[in-house]
Amino acid sequence: MKIARFSHEGRISFGIVDDDEIVVLKGDPMFAGYDPSGERVALRDVKLLAPVIPRSKIVGMAWSYFADAAEQSTAARSPGEPRFFLKPNTCVVGPGDPITVPVSTDNVHVEGELAIVIGKITRNVSVDAAEDSIWGYTVANDVTARDLQERDGDLTRAKSFDSFCPLGPVIDTEYDWTALTIESRINGEVFQKGNATLLKYTVAEMISFVSSVFTLLPGDVILTGAPDRSASVVHGDAVQVEIAGIGVLTNPVRRA
Amino acid sequence: MKIARFSHEGRISFGIVDDDEIVVLKGDPMFAGYDPSGERVALRDVKLLAPVIPRSKIVGMAWSYFADAAEQSTAARSPGEPRFFLKPNTCVVGPGDPITVPVSTDNVHVEGELAIVIGKITRNVSVDAAEDSIWGYTVANDVTARDLQERDGDLTRAKSFDSFCPLGPVIDTEYDWTALTIESRINGEVFQKGNATLLKYTVAEMISFVSSVFTLLPGDVILTGAPDRSASVVHGDAVQVEIAGIGVLTNPVRRA
Repeated sequence: MKIARFSHEGRISFGIVDDDEIVVLKGDPMFAGYDPSGERVALRDVKLLAPVIPRSKIVGMAWSYFADAAEQSTAARSPGEPRFFLKPNTCVVGPGDPITVPVSTDNVHVEGELAIVIGKITRNVSVDAAEDSIWGYTVANDVTARDLQERDGDLTRAKSFDSFCPLGPVIDTEYDWTALTIESRINGEVFQKGNATLLKYTVAEMISFVSSVFTLLPGDVILTGAPDRSASVVHGDAVQVEIAGIGVLTNPVRRA
Repeated sequence: MKIARFSHEGRISFGIVDDDEIVVLKGDPMFAGYDPSGERVALRDVKLLAPVIPRSKIVGMAWSYFADAAEQSTAARSPGEPRFFLKPNTCVVGPGDPITVPVSTDNVHVEGELAIVIGKITRNVSVDAAEDSIWGYTVANDVTARDLQERDGDLTRAKSFDSFCPLGPVIDTEYDWTALTIESRINGEVFQKGNATLLKYTVAEMISFVSSVFTLLPGDVILTGAPDRSASVVHGDAVQVEIAGIGVLTNPVRRA
């Protein structure tokens, strides 16, 4: 099932995507269940919004892919402890919304990633039980000011600016992450391709690890990291991140 | 005015502290104004809770005090750009709640800090206008797993565990930060003392800087940093952070 959050005639709603229409729901299905309002709207008539705004945090997995099969073979699936950074929920924008390049940076990079959307309160969950905490998956663009990352020697500021976490277009509640293929493009040109085979950690391992640090709340998002290299963008670019089976997340880039 | 958030007879409310009583309010005064319910309860009969749970983020200022007057004089009030880290809202606990030492660390440090509570949506605010964004001030204990900080080479995980940000006992909406004196104690023994004179940045400079990175939302909290050294705690300790004019924040330490 594909869940959309959207605005239509001045109202924000959730709905289930049904081909080229949306079955409008009465509330947020994460909390209110799938309760149809009786209304249907054409997908082309709505503005899709970020399908979720985390109540607490966005957790970004760092260095979560092997560079290639050779590195994967050397590491023999012993990748060490996962690493993560945090992005505040004020980073989130939706499909079509601009990524705004702040005045303090001249080197903004984009990376396409699979995002896990957490569906229930999750603390110290075992790897075996971790997939029960997943509400669904969406597409993310993890934006970073590389020059500020280098100057600060850490990721916090570099990844925290408003608009630095586009999410969307929808949440797929039945997506099989083991079949992940992802491709990211700037102005149509591919700069990043990857698939699940080079992930260092399973989705369940990521959730279990971060839930050993803090409680995950419904709506929290885990960015699973980027395969392959990131790429810099400038004012006027358009970035697309495509995950087959979920959709394409497109965002223009604008100077502040 | 001192604002408390508290539970009483199974209900969570906000109120204004009036000597040894609380004037109960109808809603959260940050959003609903000061609308008394007509009820008064004795302060000793309630359990005080964290006076605010940030909707978005806790921003921690790092290296925000000069070590001493000599360093301050050398730096001649040119402290360079402020630095910060993020703590998720799931870190917050209230007065009397335990600081839980997770199984993954053997070296947990505590630091007493003045916390700014933001009262309105704030983005790219000038230093001159920044104090208008302040709702009030409370007392914070910024807890860190030092061994994980060293192992990771960054602060994110080390500062993010559940219970690693005690806040309280109340929010003072009229506090004058320039008169700050702070003292922190473990089992009654003072390990940290400081005052506003060694702060590298004014409160307005901190707010202006972080608002140039991301939008601050009502209820977001900025920890202004710790003067003097931090100290390690173990199971069974009791930590007190006292800011004259706001109050004493006391938390026991428990092993997970």
